[in-house]
Amino acid sequence: MNIVINGAYQTKFGELWDKSLHDLMTEAIDGALQDAGLEKKEIEIVFLGNKMASQVSDQNHLSALVNEILGYRIPVVRVESACASGGVALSQACFALESGQYNKALVIGAEKMTDLPIEQISYSLMHAASEQERQAGLSFVGLYALMAKNYLQTFGASQEDLAYPAIKNHKHATLNPKAQFPFEISLEQVAQSALVADPLRLLHCSGITDGAAAVVLENLGCEARKNNQVQVVASVQAGETLALSARQSLTTIESTKDAAQKAYQQAGIGPEDISLLEVHDCFTIAEILAVEDLGLCHKGEGHIAMRNQKFTIGCPQPVNISGGLKACGHPVGATGVKQIVELCNQLKGRAGARQLNKPLVGLAHNVGGTGGTVVIHILKI
Amino acid sequence: MNIVINGAYQTKFGELWDKSLHDLMTEAIDGALQDAGLEKKEIEIVFLGNKMASQVSDQNHLSALVNEILGYRIPVVRVESACASGGVALSQACFALESGQYNKALVIGAEKMTDLPIEQISYSLMHAASEQERQAGLSFVGLYALMAKNYLQTFGASQEDLAYPAIKNHKHATLNPKAQFPFEISLEQVAQSALVADPLRLLHCSGITDGAAAVVLENLGCEARKNNQVQVVASVQAGETLALSARQSLTTIESTKDAAQKAYQQAGIGPEDISLLEVHDCFTIAEILAVEDLGLCHKGEGHIAMRNQKFTIGCPQPVNISGGLKACGHPVGATGVKQIVELCNQLKGRAGARQLNKPLVGLAHNVGGTGGTVVIHILKI
Repeated sequence: MNIVINGAYQTKFGELWDKSLHDLMTEAIDGALQDAGLEKKEIEIVFLGNKMASQVSDQNHLSALVNEILGYRIPVVRVESACASGGVALSQACFALESGQYNKALVIGAEKMTDLPIEQISYSLMHAASEQERQAGLSFVGLYALMAKNYLQTFGASQEDLAYPAIKNHKHATLNPKAQFPFEISLEQVAQSALVADPLRLLHCSGITDGAAAVVLENLGCEARKNNQVQVVASVQAGETLALSARQSLTTIESTKDAAQKAYQQAGIGPEDISLLEVHDCFTIAEILAVEDLGLCHKGEGHIAMRNQKFTIGCPQPVNISGGLKACGHPVGATGVKQIVELCNQLKGRAGARQLNKPLVGLAHNVGGTGGTVVIHILKI
Repeated sequence: MNIVINGAYQTKFGELWDKSLHDLMTEAIDGALQDAGLEKKEIEIVFLGNKMASQVSDQNHLSALVNEILGYRIPVVRVESACASGGVALSQACFALESGQYNKALVIGAEKMTDLPIEQISYSLMHAASEQERQAGLSFVGLYALMAKNYLQTFGASQEDLAYPAIKNHKHATLNPKAQFPFEISLEQVAQSALVADPLRLLHCSGITDGAAAVVLENLGCEARKNNQVQVVASVQAGETLALSARQSLTTIESTKDAAQKAYQQAGIGPEDISLLEVHDCFTIAEILAVEDLGLCHKGEGHIAMRNQKFTIGCPQPVNISGGLKACGHPVGATGVKQIVELCNQLKGRAGARQLNKPLVGLAHNVGGTGGTVVIHILKI
């Protein structure tokens, strides 16, 4: 695999009431192409991750809509895998480039979530859960609460431990001008925020967000990589049952472990070689499970590492410097691509106030639902 | 490309009120695997085409649902491109196999359309058209009616000419036990059927259908193909604007021409080498445009060829022997995969009462919307 990322762009994330899905996609496409120094016509194929346009914007067949935005005829593939739609779009682009049929691909993740009342958005989001779980009255925060409760009981963690990923990610977000919630929160504020689904409180949850991101990929084939070109050294998707009730364990997401194992193998590295990570923290418990399942620490010790600020900027392996889903925002179909944009900016040394000191390897971990789909990418400079 | 199809299966198409989307997918998966002589665990990756589950069954994240049906953890990719979702799923599977990362893939197309009142289905279907067209009050039959009207005026064809593809496809469907409408219709019946959108009448339109289909693909790599193994010799997707109003012509679908040109090139053949075709006849005008844009006859002469029964079973290049979308039925996400199943059965000599005399090459043409997405596959025995 000799695929590089030549351009990367993220729109502002937030409640963007003055912008349509069309606007967001257009901005992301233009931004990524400008960054790559390419004309639209140089792109040969497009991959698009989106979950909710049919429900929120009464619009699917987004592939043809992208043709209209680009202004010329080109194959466009829309994928949907709940909140992992962006990651899946990128992994499909890698297949297309590796097949040798195409050399330059554009990958877009875009989502508009704030145009409907919150009840309708919540209802639509639950289309990504199993029928039985919905009939039992579970929401996604309810499902992750079951995982959190099980985790606390199994490993003797406290509710307070669930706060640390949120506190860290909000701190990181203050350094990110694209973030939806760029302000710090305290342990007290988390503890006093409304209880949504015991033990998860409002400030343990990511928000409802509009936004888009795009990257331009190129298959270099036998050509040598230029200085400062970010390479995709692993691209792996894994799957799991839709329903939590069909699984052996609630404290491990097996699809994350499956994908991680294969991704490390593809990249020829181990978790210790990663300089920074963007992981899927839709709820704080998800980030704790992620750092364990990705092999950054032992099972059951993620909450201790978080409490000891092991993954905060300044430490050897910072997690979610962008602010993560929690504080940068979570426009579901865009998240997987935005993680890649963040890693690219860090690896290229252009991440502004939150720039790390010459990071070499980044890992992006994108989850659909409660782990029914997981996509992991590893990038190297 | 050395990809073969080792298993193929189609469920009965029709108003299957006793079957859920889960049931249909399960039947198609089991059928294709049995035909391939494979155990579930031998499949390494799955691609799924579906358009409407979110609206009809309140269910997306179908990828994880497939993991539950299969009973083990595996990457599953759901694609959506309106009525071309099935074809796109197959072309993505080809990329994955050609990338060398996987050897055996399962491709599923599945759609449940009869569980909602017809007004809701029609509304949901229109999510695949442009916002402006919907606001102008156009439905898909309205959009194709604009194309039909333009065709009749440009090429001096009559409304009667629009009937012949329907009459032929219903005749073919009488030979297909899986068809939704396996009965003949007459020129008079078409002429007397209700006018839906001038000049298109009810019997010019395909129906609302439930159904699923699946195929098992294998990348043989350097291995020789066995006797009676169907090979995929071309797999091409092309795109067009979402809105008809953004196009130069209403009497040509440029994405069909783009995809056909590239597919013939990939396969190293011309249209004259094709033994049989399954083309996207959502409305009869679509089949007339298809045979022209695929190069089977000159532009503007498709209706004459249809009138002269040039594409009926028994002729050198029969079109839609399955009954097509018109008479076999059109469960939108399943159609593209069902076309492949039909071609496989013919090429393998197991198409029962409608079996041709040793066909060698088959072409499948799957269209999303009014041509915003087109996928063409060419198969060879």
